[in-house]
Amino acid sequence: MSFPELAGQLAEVGLQFYQRGWALGTSGNFSAVVNRDPLRLAITSSGVDKATIAVGDIVEIDDRGKVVAGSGRPSAEASIHLAIVQARRTGAVLHTHSIWSTILSDAATGDGLALEGYEMLKGLDGVGTHEHREWLPILENTQDWAAAAPRIEAMLSRQPNAHGFLIRRHGLYTWGRNLAEAKRHVEALEFLFEVMGRKET
Amino acid sequence: MSFPELAGQLAEVGLQFYQRGWALGTSGNFSAVVNRDPLRLAITSSGVDKATIAVGDIVEIDDRGKVVAGSGRPSAEASIHLAIVQARRTGAVLHTHSIWSTILSDAATGDGLALEGYEMLKGLDGVGTHEHREWLPILENTQDWAAAAPRIEAMLSRQPNAHGFLIRRHGLYTWGRNLAEAKRHVEALEFLFEVMGRKET
Amino acid sequence: MSFPELAGQLAEVGLQFYQRGWALGTSGNFSAVVNRDPLRLAITSSGVDKATIAVGDIVEIDDRGKVVAGSGRPSAEASIHLAIVQARRTGAVLHTHSIWSTILSDAATGDGLALEGYEMLKGLDGVGTHEHREWLPILENTQDWAAAAPRIEAMLSRQPNAHGFLIRRHGLYTWGRNLAEAKRHVEALEFLFEVMGRKET
Amino acid sequence: MSFPELAGQLAEVGLQFYQRGWALGTSGNFSAVVNRDPLRLAITSSGVDKATIAVGDIVEIDDRGKVVAGSGRPSAEASIHLAIVQARRTGAVLHTHSIWSTILSDAATGDGLALEGYEMLKGLDGVGTHEHREWLPILENTQDWAAAAPRIEAMLSRQPNAHGFLIRRHGLYTWGRNLAEAKRHVEALEFLFEVMGRKET
Repeated sequence: MSFPELAGQLAEVGLQFYQRGWALGTSGNFSAVVNRDPLRLAITSSGVDKATIAVGDIVEIDDRGKVVAGSGRPSAEASIHLAIVQARRTGAVLHTHSIWSTILSDAATGDGLALEGYEMLKGLDGVGTHEHREWLPILENTQDWAAAAPRIEAMLSRQPNAHGFLIRRHGLYTWGRNLAEAKRHVEALEFLFEVMGRKET
Repeated sequence: MSFPELAGQLAEVGLQFYQRGWALGTSGNFSAVVNRDPLRLAITSSGVDKATIAVGDIVEIDDRGKVVAGSGRPSAEASIHLAIVQARRTGAVLHTHSIWSTILSDAATGDGLALEGYEMLKGLDGVGTHEHREWLPILENTQDWAAAAPRIEAMLSRQPNAHGFLIRRHGLYTWGRNLAEAKRHVEALEFLFEVMGRKET
Repeated sequence: MSFPELAGQLAEVGLQFYQRGWALGTSGNFSAVVNRDPLRLAITSSGVDKATIAVGDIVEIDDRGKVVAGSGRPSAEASIHLAIVQARRTGAVLHTHSIWSTILSDAATGDGLALEGYEMLKGLDGVGTHEHREWLPILENTQDWAAAAPRIEAMLSRQPNAHGFLIRRHGLYTWGRNLAEAKRHVEALEFLFEVMGRKET
Repeated sequence: MSFPELAGQLAEVGLQFYQRGWALGTSGNFSAVVNRDPLRLAITSSGVDKATIAVGDIVEIDDRGKVVAGSGRPSAEASIHLAIVQARRTGAVLHTHSIWSTILSDAATGDGLALEGYEMLKGLDGVGTHEHREWLPILENTQDWAAAAPRIEAMLSRQPNAHGFLIRRHGLYTWGRNLAEAKRHVEALEFLFEVMGRKET
């Protein structure tokens, strides 16, 4: 799919997540692979308000984060997107910043969150039964994601089966072969976060 | 009503439930009787994302689950729909997968959930007073609903007055003489789940 | 205002409350005074699904509940609306059936609910400061509101300053000089119910 | 930007906040600077129902609160808006009246609320890291904001870094260089209130 088409779809996803309260203000960022080799990624610009996100708020970057089309700086978390796309060979990466992912990532005492025994887990690619244990690693938050890229790569390598991960008090990263699958992963995981969060209160 | 008309109405219900958060991702499935004898059921295809559900995502099946119109596989839970339609002679069956039905079906220690003394119970067909006790059986979850059909049929036979049932950590099944009545049952029951769930937390 | 105009406005309010989850299924009913002398009231028909409420779902009744325009039976709770309109000389009466009014009316141990010290109380007609104590009587639920009319009249007479009342496990009644004021009262009271309910959990 | 343009944008923000439940009934009020010298402020009229707010519900006032364009009385809280605009030289001031700001402003035992360590804090102007401690002062509620203006000015002067403040059991005031920034501040702070509120229950 072309960069303009993917940019339109990313903007649409952004508006929908904004409506649900999963990307208020400038929070959240979203990307999709335009080309594999050489790698070209459509990604939300830095500081874009998701209430009014539009096609012009998406830029195209290369594998080093350099803008090759569109205007604006790529999201400060572009290096996370690039690390995921290279480690998992996915087609889209979505980062939401919801109430429940913020609360659960904060409350979890260990270095991850387990989701187990729920039918909704079947919303995750390759999971065919509720008898599945999904382990979502939790990374500590930072403001220097370029420096943290090796930490993310190591985690993705250690956890080859994880469908996503949390950043402490910051939210969720998940991905999929295409944008529709990544969006389905967001919905399944956010649903499970809300179930877990409401159970514990 | 014709298959295309019912398919359109099922898709519309799916979108509305998606908006309310009762059928996120590919969760939830919905059916309506096209013809009684021989039995023909319009039902959501397997794996359809409810965010974008449309007429083409509904297939028509016979009483053994074989597709006779439309393209796609019927939902993996088609045998539950067929069991209900045959046991109750209803016109529509709706399965939602909400936060509160997931939580309550998990928290209930016995094999069912009682709803009693609420005005909203009058939203259920044939219930004329709040002084009613609705007993919703809870079934254990499985991934082989074809094999579980006898278990569902036995439960429906043992509980002739139940307007629905829960599947553990999976959600609600309810039905009605037509799609509007089944939808009203979903709304009344989901309302009561939320009341019960919030009271207990 | 004419009956058709008021019917249109009542249907619109019904749809909005349905969207907020304050009138799911067939719950909730709404009325507005068409004429004072002789009394003519536009009121929602019995059993109308608020998801699809339209002008044709509103009937016009006289002071004894007899339908004088439109087709359908008036709501089973028409006698409550008539009692309020006659005791308070209001222009509109709205009954919502929300999660929080259901929970609070159930949890309150006495015969009423006090709301005190909140700025939102100024949303109620004639209240000019947050230093106000609103006492909402709670009536026990029944299915024979015609027989209960004297009980409602006595309560309205004893509580001349109340802007509404609750029915146990059933919801809220409030009113206003016109439909806009009654709707504002619903919003102010439902807001305060949610604040009170969330504080207590 | 001209008064009519700003009035249209303020009405639009009002409708959006109404939809989210942050400005139910007549609660909430909003302003934007039309001109700096002499000061001219576009501000919501007193008693406007946010469900139906439109351009005609916005008036233009001078630095003493006198209406210079449009019809209607300015909000009773105009003196708060004027105090903020003069102390901070901001372009827009937004006051929301949400469930969670009401609960948190009531529950806080001291004279303020601390928000610390959350990524969402970066939604606030000038905050570049989650390692930030935002202190929101809490003022006691009153019905005489003209008399309270010195109290507000003193607080704004004592807390030069605060991006907003709470009024007890009444809601949030925040501001920004323009309306978009002020709205982003509302979203970031309301998000954090909900996280804090849900954690504590």
